[in-house]
Amino acid sequence: MPHTKTDFHETLINSTRLFEGKIINLRRDEVMLPNGKTGTREVVEHPGAVAIVPITNDGRVILVRQFRHPVQQVMLEVPAGKLDPGERPEACALRELAEETGFVANNLRKLTAMYTTPGFSNEVIHVYLAEGLVESDKQPDEDEFINTETYTSEQIREMIISGEICDAKSLVALYLAGI
Amino acid sequence: MPHTKTDFHETLINSTRLFEGKIINLRRDEVMLPNGKTGTREVVEHPGAVAIVPITNDGRVILVRQFRHPVQQVMLEVPAGKLDPGERPEACALRELAEETGFVANNLRKLTAMYTTPGFSNEVIHVYLAEGLVESDKQPDEDEFINTETYTSEQIREMIISGEICDAKSLVALYLAGI
Repeated sequence: MPHTKTDFHETLINSTRLFEGKIINLRRDEVMLPNGKTGTREVVEHPGAVAIVPITNDGRVILVRQFRHPVQQVMLEVPAGKLDPGERPEACALRELAEETGFVANNLRKLTAMYTTPGFSNEVIHVYLAEGLVESDKQPDEDEFINTETYTSEQIREMIISGEICDAKSLVALYLAGI
Repeated sequence: MPHTKTDFHETLINSTRLFEGKIINLRRDEVMLPNGKTGTREVVEHPGAVAIVPITNDGRVILVRQFRHPVQQVMLEVPAGKLDPGERPEACALRELAEETGFVANNLRKLTAMYTTPGFSNEVIHVYLAEGLVESDKQPDEDEFINTETYTSEQIREMIISGEICDAKSLVALYLAGI
């Protein structure tokens, strides 16, 4: 590679905390740019999250349908959820899978970790494939209203093309799972 | 589908604007949940963005390398940028392509539109394939420090596996472009 990190490095001058919320925090940083000028950067702090592609024993994929307030739309996505403080991503994946779908996975395999929006947030999503599923008790969070639905790979590919599945983490997760 | 939007619908009770920034705004909404309880929703408002997969006339892909302050990392991504007020996505894609890479595209084809983080933001990214590239003048934004680099499809697949390309929009865009 012709370029190193130092070509682009910004130096932090000042950081202002603007909001501390239930899921996200917001801060505004003032930085010195490589040309010596100053710039501002708005940063949404996120604890990180997991996304899971659960494959049933007959080869179908479990998705979750829920209302997403920020986009005012009912969406069909892979199961996902944010990390609790100090929680390891694998543990979070198993917990969220059980909470949202009622299944325990005997085989959990990491597919990737990715940044969702590195331009304004530090959110990382750890993506897993879950197989060897066994039913347990479904325990959704108190303020989550979620339906689980299972689909064949072909149905999922059609829903990706039609735009019914249209969030970035689900698209990446399903592609990486070979759906 | 067994479920309709009304199964999940949340009713807005109250909305508080917390921050208006250069790129994002933040508000906190209080909603009535389907069970009659109230909940809060933190929403990052984003103007929307475009991402472009530019294919050179010899079949290589142009990527951009830049420091991303929120993740404190130099990242290699597809060219992208946010919509100006009132700007159509296609116009934005051509503008950002020229600004970030110095190329004009004779053929621009929409691949998809997706939500990056529907759990806390309304950001939509419109994804385009750009072909028939002709060199123009590169005009990056004043506070953008960007290098352009071109890669073969094989190199890109290797960098996806190695994790060097690791942001959601680039992964989706490159998959959809058939890379």
